[in-house]
Amino acid sequence: MRVGVLTGGGDCPGLNAVIRAVVRKGVAEYDMDFVGFRDGWRGPLENDTTSLGVDEVRGILPRGGTILGSSRTNPFGIEGGVERIKANLQESGIDALVAIGGEDTLGVATKLAELGVNVVGVPKTIDNDLSGTDFTFGFDTAVNIATEAIDRLHTTAESHHRVLVIEVMGRHAGWIALHSGLAGGANIILIPERPFDIEKVCAQVESRFATRYSPIVVVAEGATPAEGTMTLQAGEKDAFGHVRLGGIGDRLAGEIEHRTGKEARAVVLGHVQRGGTPTAFDRWLATRFGLHAIQAVHDGDFGTMVALHGTEIERVALKEGTGELKTVRPELYEEAEVLFG
Amino acid sequence: MRVGVLTGGGDCPGLNAVIRAVVRKGVAEYDMDFVGFRDGWRGPLENDTTSLGVDEVRGILPRGGTILGSSRTNPFGIEGGVERIKANLQESGIDALVAIGGEDTLGVATKLAELGVNVVGVPKTIDNDLSGTDFTFGFDTAVNIATEAIDRLHTTAESHHRVLVIEVMGRHAGWIALHSGLAGGANIILIPERPFDIEKVCAQVESRFATRYSPIVVVAEGATPAEGTMTLQAGEKDAFGHVRLGGIGDRLAGEIEHRTGKEARAVVLGHVQRGGTPTAFDRWLATRFGLHAIQAVHDGDFGTMVALHGTEIERVALKEGTGELKTVRPELYEEAEVLFG
Amino acid sequence: MRVGVLTGGGDCPGLNAVIRAVVRKGVAEYDMDFVGFRDGWRGPLENDTTSLGVDEVRGILPRGGTILGSSRTNPFGIEGGVERIKANLQESGIDALVAIGGEDTLGVATKLAELGVNVVGVPKTIDNDLSGTDFTFGFDTAVNIATEAIDRLHTTAESHHRVLVIEVMGRHAGWIALHSGLAGGANIILIPERPFDIEKVCAQVESRFATRYSPIVVVAEGATPAEGTMTLQAGEKDAFGHVRLGGIGDRLAGEIEHRTGKEARAVVLGHVQRGGTPTAFDRWLATRFGLHAIQAVHDGDFGTMVALHGTEIERVALKEGTGELKTVRPELYEEAEVLFG
Amino acid sequence: MRVGVLTGGGDCPGLNAVIRAVVRKGVAEYDMDFVGFRDGWRGPLENDTTSLGVDEVRGILPRGGTILGSSRTNPFGIEGGVERIKANLQESGIDALVAIGGEDTLGVATKLAELGVNVVGVPKTIDNDLSGTDFTFGFDTAVNIATEAIDRLHTTAESHHRVLVIEVMGRHAGWIALHSGLAGGANIILIPERPFDIEKVCAQVESRFATRYSPIVVVAEGATPAEGTMTLQAGEKDAFGHVRLGGIGDRLAGEIEHRTGKEARAVVLGHVQRGGTPTAFDRWLATRFGLHAIQAVHDGDFGTMVALHGTEIERVALKEGTGELKTVRPELYEEAEVLFG
Repeated sequence: MRVGVLTGGGDCPGLNAVIRAVVRKGVAEYDMDFVGFRDGWRGPLENDTTSLGVDEVRGILPRGGTILGSSRTNPFGIEGGVERIKANLQESGIDALVAIGGEDTLGVATKLAELGVNVVGVPKTIDNDLSGTDFTFGFDTAVNIATEAIDRLHTTAESHHRVLVIEVMGRHAGWIALHSGLAGGANIILIPERPFDIEKVCAQVESRFATRYSPIVVVAEGATPAEGTMTLQAGEKDAFGHVRLGGIGDRLAGEIEHRTGKEARAVVLGHVQRGGTPTAFDRWLATRFGLHAIQAVHDGDFGTMVALHGTEIERVALKEGTGELKTVRPELYEEAEVLFG
Repeated sequence: MRVGVLTGGGDCPGLNAVIRAVVRKGVAEYDMDFVGFRDGWRGPLENDTTSLGVDEVRGILPRGGTILGSSRTNPFGIEGGVERIKANLQESGIDALVAIGGEDTLGVATKLAELGVNVVGVPKTIDNDLSGTDFTFGFDTAVNIATEAIDRLHTTAESHHRVLVIEVMGRHAGWIALHSGLAGGANIILIPERPFDIEKVCAQVESRFATRYSPIVVVAEGATPAEGTMTLQAGEKDAFGHVRLGGIGDRLAGEIEHRTGKEARAVVLGHVQRGGTPTAFDRWLATRFGLHAIQAVHDGDFGTMVALHGTEIERVALKEGTGELKTVRPELYEEAEVLFG
Repeated sequence: MRVGVLTGGGDCPGLNAVIRAVVRKGVAEYDMDFVGFRDGWRGPLENDTTSLGVDEVRGILPRGGTILGSSRTNPFGIEGGVERIKANLQESGIDALVAIGGEDTLGVATKLAELGVNVVGVPKTIDNDLSGTDFTFGFDTAVNIATEAIDRLHTTAESHHRVLVIEVMGRHAGWIALHSGLAGGANIILIPERPFDIEKVCAQVESRFATRYSPIVVVAEGATPAEGTMTLQAGEKDAFGHVRLGGIGDRLAGEIEHRTGKEARAVVLGHVQRGGTPTAFDRWLATRFGLHAIQAVHDGDFGTMVALHGTEIERVALKEGTGELKTVRPELYEEAEVLFG
Repeated sequence: MRVGVLTGGGDCPGLNAVIRAVVRKGVAEYDMDFVGFRDGWRGPLENDTTSLGVDEVRGILPRGGTILGSSRTNPFGIEGGVERIKANLQESGIDALVAIGGEDTLGVATKLAELGVNVVGVPKTIDNDLSGTDFTFGFDTAVNIATEAIDRLHTTAESHHRVLVIEVMGRHAGWIALHSGLAGGANIILIPERPFDIEKVCAQVESRFATRYSPIVVVAEGATPAEGTMTLQAGEKDAFGHVRLGGIGDRLAGEIEHRTGKEARAVVLGHVQRGGTPTAFDRWLATRFGLHAIQAVHDGDFGTMVALHGTEIERVALKEGTGELKTVRPELYEEAEVLFG
């Protein structure tokens, strides 16, 4: 059996661990051979392949990124894209595909499966916002990096009696902010699911200073103020017309400083959160995802993706992972609020 | 309401995070006050207390160990021990206890609960072998430390064409060995649940060298050879009669070296695995355990302990956590075996 | 003998290690007692003190920040400031001061020493740009944090065929950029000492992509383009008139993206570089600085500061550390250039 | 010009960084080509070579170990060994050798240089005990790993009122013990240069407990008790006649426990200290060593080795690095003693 493998969307620590497990088990147990497609769906679309065997996956377990490259190419947005993929797969004698990716990549996989392509999906999102699985790999790494940064900021905040705002990933869901904020002992956590009230934030800042300690504010990149409450507006454009400047972290620090008169500084963690060696948890989860995905291929159980439920890896329908976004439930946030301030 | 808190058994990263969450929420939400008991059950037995309030728990979230101290004192093994505990609790006006510990500590809690003491338990074991909960805090930290050590050993093994044996914690269950071995890309993983065949181990060592790579063997401290298969025996005593020397890691390295003629070295991680700052996962889990435990106290739901099921914190009967040991299921080990060698 | 201790300027990992060593040795060997002044020169100016003994310094060695707080208060800029300091020192019976700080703090110390105050200085700058000493503590920690971030960015750059620009500290000197860039294997390093040519930078970016690899650019916050070569201008102001947005990292990424057509992203490490636990090197250096500083006080060798020369701690005149800035010598940069691209 | 490169002796983080810098600069600046010799002096002895160019050194900067392999082969102990090396070098058209190694490897290099072989040396010892250079790469990494371990042990020691003994590398010199002990805030540091008095050690242990804190003892593997003072003897042999058991750490813990009645546990860090990714300092130093070594080759300045003096890389005669051992000077140890206990 010949199996193609691709990785799509933003990179995420653990992608290589999945690829390695897929190939190692496929070769050793099922005598499969493998073809790597480069840069997500662009690979099968343009038939851009790379050899992928036991030698190619040696030593990649602890490495971040993806040896296959990634892109956001969507064949459904390209005239004749799907037909080209089907033709390329047939021509190369590919019997099945393992598609590793997030909402977009798996969305394509879902539709291709409906069109008869043999696909098994592996869910990937650093933001942990895919439904159908308890956790996705990469998330634990990102949370640990953010937590370590918060640890570091505490001592600076105390020494200088300053507010420190740290902006973490999370465009639509506040999982990284919530977990790292809890783990790092942040005093305020702001997430996309709950538009925040800048006056309440400033009141918390001031009450924290009243105890002689300095506040740390963790804000998800997608968090937004309740309408009309903030002076600073988003999205200043640079000279080339790109919106680069003025993320929520910077704006929030500015607004807090202006309103409370306390020095406030922002740190925007950015890409540092998504690169580098995965944590043990992420390597374990990614490896198990890979082992179970190739088993699903062997079983001919296509149109499914692997998922973590408790401590079990199970299979769910692909569309379960690409349906609605998994956001932070109100009770989880409220449970944490008692530790704020 | 006045609540006593104690930590028993071996220390574990996350104990302080539990204590902090218990106190912070108890004070802020339920207007409770707290008494810290020193050194596990020795505290209430000897009425050895320490003040425990919001000030005492400030800054302890990221710190390993336990500010309350620990011991293995068992009041049921002491003449009149239980009566003294009950008298001391009454005298100090303690309405309820939060007991944080493993099999032994929670075993005492279970029996005290049956005798009418108001106890809520928080499960703790670095080995992850308590039933009733998916994971316990401290385990993730230990696995990450072991994984980082394995990462480091790989390069030395390669450079010197040597076997490296790493002994990790796990007296009765191989969870740390299995998780860190998978995450670190070990070539052989030996756990207490499966007596190993030294000849098969040596065959794997030799087949690994045949690929020009050097083997890493992860062995849980409680792993044992199938009877009669190893020359080296356990438990040499030192000049004072203590069994200090010759753990399984050292013995295994000796035996491999002798049988295969390849240099073999052992590293025994020991206490390094259980100290220091907890990972983000462990801080998050410990914090949530603390928040839910004090809520159980507030609800008067005694004789229970908190537990992680999937991503939910739930309450289970105390005895559920202290019944049978949670060992590695055969299928989990077998799933990983394809990656060995 | 009664000795006052203060820390001024930006915080820096290792400050607490200095304070601890000063106090531990002063108490144990010279029977001194200590007074902590809060927030740099504001402390003696306003006689804001805190008790400082062996108990206060227990456990602070591995902690970032400063238990004494810091500020940028300059008594020479305040009417009657110097007189108030002298009066406060006399009133509290302070025989000598240990002043730990950078150019500004030690500049004040230098002038006070000339006015007869008994001061010994300990040089501190995370940027490593103080003359008179080979290295200052905090620098090694910052370089390691930046290097780890670069390691993480490599995998993302490769996976997405993107340029990643990382802005590190260094307003006037490029030490952090040079060391972390070398250690992280950056492809381009830009420092304040050498105005850069944006066209050459873009040419290097393109030549790197030609090898199928993705470029990492490390840029010191104080690096500047050769005049007139960049479209994007510095210093956009936010709605409150603060210059918050548009540091060199963001501007450079924008310019590279525009000129080369390759996606470029910037990461601004910011305050994460200066907080948290110091590296072993910084703890060792800070501890030795503290031990030698208090010995200088004991010897009555005032107007001096401690300095690292090779592996020796020596004393130099205070003004040596506050004279000219120690910038990156051209030959050091040129030596590294062969590794660019 | 064709240049051979080899790495000998124990592996050490930074070896790959040296190799990379040598090759990158040699190719780019001097148009050299390179031959890698496998496993130290065994390579040229048996003419076991591997290709070594810009592609082979890509990505190796952050990796521990050595891509060239290592061994302790000494051609001077082998009949006709030197002649074979000379013949092999000539046959392969090798004009010069870069030999990276410690006392033994550079000792061979020194003698070969006297016999007319064109050699430049790069000093390597994780123990930092080579004379002629302020520091060697690998040492900083080892010290950081040991310090992190000590940090972790503190919390366990406190929680259990136990003595924790940590054995670190250092057979003949106590540099790692001294630096990590200082950085980790150890209460007792024992080094090979000063035979220790077990009674004094136990007195310090007890005085530490008297302050309600628990002692951490750092002991170099080569530290020895003053004659006749310890009951436990070294060097128990295992069933195969290997001396595996009973290093100084275990023996010391046993003796302390017996004499003081306090629980004592030993941790032996072992090989974990020498593997894995190098610190930023070690990458910087190793890279600069490589750049300067290949320049020395280009300059024809053979029989020399590179060395760090202050912040400068200089050349010294090869024999300077292989003469006497650089041990811890008494005043450095005494300076630190005030922080013990």
